[in-house]
Amino acid sequence: MDFKFLQNLIALAQTKIAMIIMDGLGGLPLEPGGKTELETARTPHLDALAAQSALGLTIPVRPGITPGSGPGHLGIFGYDPVEYEIGRGALEALGVDFELGPDDVAARGNFCSVDAAGLVTDRRAGRLPTDASRELAKLLRAIKMDGVEFFIEPVKEHRFAFVMRGAELGDALTETDPQKTGVPALPVQALTPDSEKSARIANQFIEQARRLLAGQHPANMILLRGFAKFPAMPKYRDIFGLNAAAIAVNGMYRGVARLVGMQVLDVGGTEIADEFETLEQNWNDFDFFYLHVKQTDTAGADGDFGRKVRVIEQVDALMPRLMALKPDVVIVSGDHSTPAVLRFHSWHPVPTLLYGKYVRADGIAEFGERACARGSLGVLPAKDVMPIALANAQRIAKYGA
Amino acid sequence: MDFKFLQNLIALAQTKIAMIIMDGLGGLPLEPGGKTELETARTPHLDALAAQSALGLTIPVRPGITPGSGPGHLGIFGYDPVEYEIGRGALEALGVDFELGPDDVAARGNFCSVDAAGLVTDRRAGRLPTDASRELAKLLRAIKMDGVEFFIEPVKEHRFAFVMRGAELGDALTETDPQKTGVPALPVQALTPDSEKSARIANQFIEQARRLLAGQHPANMILLRGFAKFPAMPKYRDIFGLNAAAIAVNGMYRGVARLVGMQVLDVGGTEIADEFETLEQNWNDFDFFYLHVKQTDTAGADGDFGRKVRVIEQVDALMPRLMALKPDVVIVSGDHSTPAVLRFHSWHPVPTLLYGKYVRADGIAEFGERACARGSLGVLPAKDVMPIALANAQRIAKYGA
Repeated sequence: MDFKFLQNLIALAQTKIAMIIMDGLGGLPLEPGGKTELETARTPHLDALAAQSALGLTIPVRPGITPGSGPGHLGIFGYDPVEYEIGRGALEALGVDFELGPDDVAARGNFCSVDAAGLVTDRRAGRLPTDASRELAKLLRAIKMDGVEFFIEPVKEHRFAFVMRGAELGDALTETDPQKTGVPALPVQALTPDSEKSARIANQFIEQARRLLAGQHPANMILLRGFAKFPAMPKYRDIFGLNAAAIAVNGMYRGVARLVGMQVLDVGGTEIADEFETLEQNWNDFDFFYLHVKQTDTAGADGDFGRKVRVIEQVDALMPRLMALKPDVVIVSGDHSTPAVLRFHSWHPVPTLLYGKYVRADGIAEFGERACARGSLGVLPAKDVMPIALANAQRIAKYGA
Repeated sequence: MDFKFLQNLIALAQTKIAMIIMDGLGGLPLEPGGKTELETARTPHLDALAAQSALGLTIPVRPGITPGSGPGHLGIFGYDPVEYEIGRGALEALGVDFELGPDDVAARGNFCSVDAAGLVTDRRAGRLPTDASRELAKLLRAIKMDGVEFFIEPVKEHRFAFVMRGAELGDALTETDPQKTGVPALPVQALTPDSEKSARIANQFIEQARRLLAGQHPANMILLRGFAKFPAMPKYRDIFGLNAAAIAVNGMYRGVARLVGMQVLDVGGTEIADEFETLEQNWNDFDFFYLHVKQTDTAGADGDFGRKVRVIEQVDALMPRLMALKPDVVIVSGDHSTPAVLRFHSWHPVPTLLYGKYVRADGIAEFGERACARGSLGVLPAKDVMPIALANAQRIAKYGA
C-alpha cells in the first residue's frame, strides 16, 4: 500500500500488536501426500488461537520469488521488498548495532587465507574464531586515510562489517570475493562514475590491510562484498504511528528491525524463552512487538524436519505467555518458507494467523499450510498484513465521507 | 511482475515445464446448482494429478474482463495483456507464418459480397472456400503502389491476412467492416495524424481491389479490420531463460506463441492426439512446451455442453502420455472461460492446476472450478502462474540476502 495514503488515515490508540515471526516457517511434506513441519507439530495453543483467528498464506515478495532474510522481513513488516532493497553490507553493519549514517558505505568482510602468490586458499580462513577476528579488526583500525573514516566491526567467526565514511562515496561497487579458491581476490571496481572515489579508497584500504595482515596465520587477507549504503526507509512511527520494539537474537534481524525504526531490545539469552521473557518485561513500554525465532529456519536449512517440528512446538508452548499479556492483535507468520526437504529458503507462501477481538474468525482450529489455504485472508502479499493488523487494532480511521 | 526484476533472478536448469491449455476451459452449469463442463467430465487422470498439485483460479486480464484469444493467451503466458496489446491484424498475419516486420501494418481481411450499389450482401461471401480465396489473393497481388509493398496471404475460407509495408505507416486506423449487411463498406479513417498516410494507402488499395474483383462471384469486394503493427514483446528466452516450443493447430495460437518467442512445431494432424504425439517427438529438444487444445472453446462457443465435456475427457485420456515423459512441472489451465450456456468467451476465472515435485499439494483430488476455488494458489492473475511454475522448476534464484 502507498504509505502516504495509509499515513493520512493512521489513528492513535492504546492497543498493542504482537508479531511472532518463525523464520522460514512454511514447509513441505517429506513424502508426497504427507504433512509439512507445521502440520506435523503438536501445537494445541496455536490451533486454539487459529480457531479465533483469520488465516491466510502470505507471499513475501512476488509469486514464485524466493526471498532472502532481508526482503522476507521487509515484506511481513509491511514494505514492498522490491521497492525497498537492502544491500548485504548495510544489513551486516546494522546487525552489529553499528549506526550507519546516510553517507556511509558498508560491506560484508571476511578474513581469508592467501598463499605467497596472493591466491586465495581459504575464503573463510578456516572459519577463524570470533576472538581472533576481534584482534585482527584492531590491527585494521590502524589504517588511516585523509577525508575518510573506516570502521571494522567483528561479527562472528571470520566475518566483519566494514564501513567507509566520507563525502561523495558511492556504493555501486563490485565485490572482491572471487567465490572460489586458487585465484587472487578481485579489485573493487566502480559500476558508476559517482562510485569511482569509493572504489579507489576501498582498494587502498585492502592494499594496506594486505600489508598489515601479511605475518598473520591463517587469516592474512580480507575479502569485501555487498557494498551498500543505508537505504532510506520510512519508519514505523511515521507510517504506522507505532512505538515498535524488536526482540531478536541474530544481528541481521535486529538490523532490519532498526532499519524500519523499531527499538531493538536486549535479550538476556539466546533461547526462545529468553525472547518471550524480554517481551513480558517490556510489554508496558511499546505498542508493537516483533519477536523473531531463528531456529525454525536453521533446522529447515539443515534439512532437519524433526528439529523444525520441535522448534515450532517450543514456540507453541510459549504462546500462553504472550496471550497472558492480553495483546489486542497477534500475527503469527514467517518471513518466508524453508522446507526441510529443500534445505533452503523457498518461494512457497507462508502460513499466517491474525488474531484479535474484531478479527472475523474463520473457525478453523488448526494452524498449518493447508488450513491457512482455506482461510479468509486468502493468498495475499505479506506487505498487506500490517494494514490489516492495524485496522484490527483500531488504528486506521475511515477513508472518505 | 516486472520482467527486469525477474530476469535478474532467472537461473538455468535442466528441468522441463509443460503447459496444457484447453481453450475456453472454464464453464458454468446448465442449471443452477449443477456441475460445469469440467466438473461433469470424467477425468480420472486429471483428478489424480490434482491430488498432487496446487489448485487455483486464474484471472486472464482483470476481474470481470472477458478476454479475446490473444489477451487470454498472453495472460497465461506470463504477460500483462493490458500492457501488451496485440492487434487482431497482427495476430492474423502471425497465424499464417507471415514474418511481420517492425514497420508493417497488418489487418484481417475478408472477401465479401456487395450488390451493384456497393452495399454489403454477405460479409463472408458465403464462407468462400479456401481454394477460391487463394485465387483471389493472387489477383490482389497485382496491386502496386510507389513506396509501399502489399502482402495478401489467404488464411481459411473467406479470410486473409493483409499487410502494408512502407515508411511512416501508422496503425491507428478504423475498420471497413460495417458489421452488418445492406450498407456499404466503410472508408479507412486515421485516428491519429501519423496514420493518415496509411489510411490513404489502404483506401487506394481497397478501391483497386474493388475494380479487380468486380467480375468475381460471390466474392467481389474486401473488408479490412483490426489494423495493427507487430507489438514488441519480450521473448521467453530472454525473460524466462526458456527454450520454448508451441504445439497448436490453429493459426492464431501459433501466432501468439511465435510472438513471445516460442518455436512453433509442425503437428502431423489436427487431432488432439496428434498434438500429444508432437509433444513426445520433441520432448528432448526444448525445456518448455505449450500445447493448445482448441476444441473445448469451439464446443463452448457452439453451446454444446456435452461435446465440451467429451473434449475434456479426451484430453484427460491423453494425460498419461504427458506424464510418462516425466515433466518436472505441469500447468493445466485455459486461456479464458467459454461456458456452453453463454456460447461465448466469458470473464469467469479459469481452473488451474500446478503440478511438480516441490509444489505444496493441496490434496484436493478433483480438477474442477469449485475444487480450484479451494486451492492454495487462490484466485490469482494468470500472469503470475509462469513465475510460480519457474520457481517450482528451480529456475529462479533467491532475491536478496
